[in-house]
Amino acid sequence: MKSQELQILALNAFPGGPSAVPPDVAALIERRRRSFGAGSVLFYDEPLRMLRAEGAHLYASDGRAYLDFYNNVPTVGHCHPKVVEAVRRQVGELNIHSRYLFDVAHDYAEKLLATFPAPLSNVVLTCTGSESNDLALRLARKVSGGEGIVVTQTAYHGNTSTVTEVSPSSYKNGAPPPRVRMVPAPDPALFGNDVAQGFADAVKDAIAAMEADGIRFAGLLVDTIFSSDGVYANPPGFLKAAVDVVHAAGGLFIADEVQPGFGRTGEGMWGFSRHGVVPDIVTMGKPMGNGYPIAGLVTRPELLSAFCNDFGYFNTFAGSPVACAAALAVLEALEEDDLIANAARVGRHLTARLKRLQGRAPITAVRGAGLYLGVEFGTQDGPAPQIARGLINGLRQRGILIGAAGRFGNVLKIRPPLCVTTAHADELVDAMEAVLG
Amino acid sequence: MKSQELQILALNAFPGGPSAVPPDVAALIERRRRSFGAGSVLFYDEPLRMLRAEGAHLYASDGRAYLDFYNNVPTVGHCHPKVVEAVRRQVGELNIHSRYLFDVAHDYAEKLLATFPAPLSNVVLTCTGSESNDLALRLARKVSGGEGIVVTQTAYHGNTSTVTEVSPSSYKNGAPPPRVRMVPAPDPALFGNDVAQGFADAVKDAIAAMEADGIRFAGLLVDTIFSSDGVYANPPGFLKAAVDVVHAAGGLFIADEVQPGFGRTGEGMWGFSRHGVVPDIVTMGKPMGNGYPIAGLVTRPELLSAFCNDFGYFNTFAGSPVACAAALAVLEALEEDDLIANAARVGRHLTARLKRLQGRAPITAVRGAGLYLGVEFGTQDGPAPQIARGLINGLRQRGILIGAAGRFGNVLKIRPPLCVTTAHADELVDAMEAVLG
Repeated sequence: MKSQELQILALNAFPGGPSAVPPDVAALIERRRRSFGAGSVLFYDEPLRMLRAEGAHLYASDGRAYLDFYNNVPTVGHCHPKVVEAVRRQVGELNIHSRYLFDVAHDYAEKLLATFPAPLSNVVLTCTGSESNDLALRLARKVSGGEGIVVTQTAYHGNTSTVTEVSPSSYKNGAPPPRVRMVPAPDPALFGNDVAQGFADAVKDAIAAMEADGIRFAGLLVDTIFSSDGVYANPPGFLKAAVDVVHAAGGLFIADEVQPGFGRTGEGMWGFSRHGVVPDIVTMGKPMGNGYPIAGLVTRPELLSAFCNDFGYFNTFAGSPVACAAALAVLEALEEDDLIANAARVGRHLTARLKRLQGRAPITAVRGAGLYLGVEFGTQDGPAPQIARGLINGLRQRGILIGAAGRFGNVLKIRPPLCVTTAHADELVDAMEAVLG
Repeated sequence: MKSQELQILALNAFPGGPSAVPPDVAALIERRRRSFGAGSVLFYDEPLRMLRAEGAHLYASDGRAYLDFYNNVPTVGHCHPKVVEAVRRQVGELNIHSRYLFDVAHDYAEKLLATFPAPLSNVVLTCTGSESNDLALRLARKVSGGEGIVVTQTAYHGNTSTVTEVSPSSYKNGAPPPRVRMVPAPDPALFGNDVAQGFADAVKDAIAAMEADGIRFAGLLVDTIFSSDGVYANPPGFLKAAVDVVHAAGGLFIADEVQPGFGRTGEGMWGFSRHGVVPDIVTMGKPMGNGYPIAGLVTRPELLSAFCNDFGYFNTFAGSPVACAAALAVLEALEEDDLIANAARVGRHLTARLKRLQGRAPITAVRGAGLYLGVEFGTQDGPAPQIARGLINGLRQRGILIGAAGRFGNVLKIRPPLCVTTAHADELVDAMEAVLG
């Protein structure tokens, strides 16, 4: 697993050293090295200096426009006028913490909670998906009385101490501790036609193994579109058997919606609903404020109460008027711009074109839902991360931003702002053909 | 400790149940209960619905202005025009993650790092103080090879799983795990005239006790003005002996500057510098973006490298162009408005007036530095949290916002925006006299 993950990190990353970049970019790279040191990771063999962004495009210092098929945070489009206006209005008026009352927090919370099935009626606002998943683990452990968490093999759920433990893809050396158990991603290539049963059995075995080691089971945490594992979305409903196993074992099911949430699958707001399950805890983040830091956790009131009996929880910046105003504008823009339907429509078109490309390129699978797609590359020698890396840098040279994922780093990860059009999708596939050719 | 902390939480908090608030506030309280459930904590017996804020004042739905002596986040003043303008400009132009290059990150990082002593030359940007302290603990544990952390008895350092362990004040039930050891706050009432030696001895004993239990020492983590412990700032330099003990034992010293940092002490940018020490890691947060979520960690490059060899660390929203633009505007406003000198000047005036009040009220100590002051209340029966609670609600009725801290919840915590004037300070003390009278 270690060497695989190194591959994933290396796939998108600027390798350092001499690079054929213009002097302005070289100067920034040097400033970056001095101030940010080893913590700095840049994208691309030739990193980009960005100046502005709008809709589905970023504009770089080389004078070119870059079509964005990488960034899911600016989900309603870079610098969406509605979100920009909401932030501009609120930041000059009131920006305080949530121990005072202010209206916009409630306007937002109610609109957000209305998108969830009834039992999930309480929300905790945080600043980042990492904070949401960290809190979800605290709740699950408190409520279950257990410690053991099951995650997928190449999962990424965030960056705190505790969330890193459940993010195998963050380990360059070492491995998660015994209280974290890994199962394979729900890959049809592994489990065959009955992914549901295969994945449920893997979860059941992982629970049995941890309990045999004296570790009580607390819950299953998965990204409901398994993005860092390589994007596994189908068939819809396959998660239900695993969730039944979790509940039978006394654990909680935590749905991490940081990646698939807010309409990206084109089939409603949340990835879990495609699977016909109701999670005990749902976490969300990235696209929630279109770039303004806001994230959250939704759960049943009694779970939250059980936790709050033992601990105070307060988050200074979370749910501020500006954060809520930005997030409310995102929900409104999703509706007004009809972006969930657009994700479905453009996703279908893109999938069809990618499947046609599959016959003429070393593509072993085209997967996903809506505007979260994975294109897996392989040859007779097995997974082909070098093709993914070549595409990432080749598409950058042709003015398109994209990334990769998966256990072997051989899956092109497609998750653009939801405002992209079928013409943009054509531009992507045309460019892929040119690079692959 | 449990019952003490319950007192602190209860001191500021809305107790729930019937409250003499206007209908608009009552309606919001009910909406809040429904959406946020047990996670919701409001201030005051009669919570406030805020509409707007400017400078040192918040304006509530009751038509009144409230002078702010509570909030340190809007440190250069609520809705400071310079910060508002920076956010408004940047949010419409570019707001992306830090794996692309953009200029403002470097303009900010360099200006920030210039305020630190030379060995501390790398910065990691995060979104919250909690994320900064969580990462600091990961670094300290990785670099030291130990697990054991020493903190003060009523410390608060944030809200992640791992940071809650080192925040004894967050526990309503239970206590920190064995790898976290507590020492008393550096209170002259406990340690006498030689606080430095007393506190250093307490740290030394805590390290010895954990090592006797087979737990290897990793580091000492303190808020350098000990705010949640009740505000202990003097004499300057008292921390040095404890830091020497930490280094002799092979541990790291983590200075949590979330509370005292960014000029609040009136004696330079950072609380640690008053003590003549150079920390191994410095964490910061709250005032950094004047309300825009940004936080950070500053350390030596070799410590960061050691950590990054084993783990990838990436934080999606951290160090975005908007976050850096807001934070850069804060540094500029601190200079242009001469706020560190103002903190010193107003702090001196306020301290003198509080000390005069001390002769005529049940005040057992007036402590602090600059615009972080603590006023401790006690009677012949001991600590008097009921006086602090009476003042908090009494000052709210007189249009002044304030809070409390300390092991017994009997310390009025004074930490206003740094733009308050001596006239505002007079207004506070006059109102305190009226409430106490």
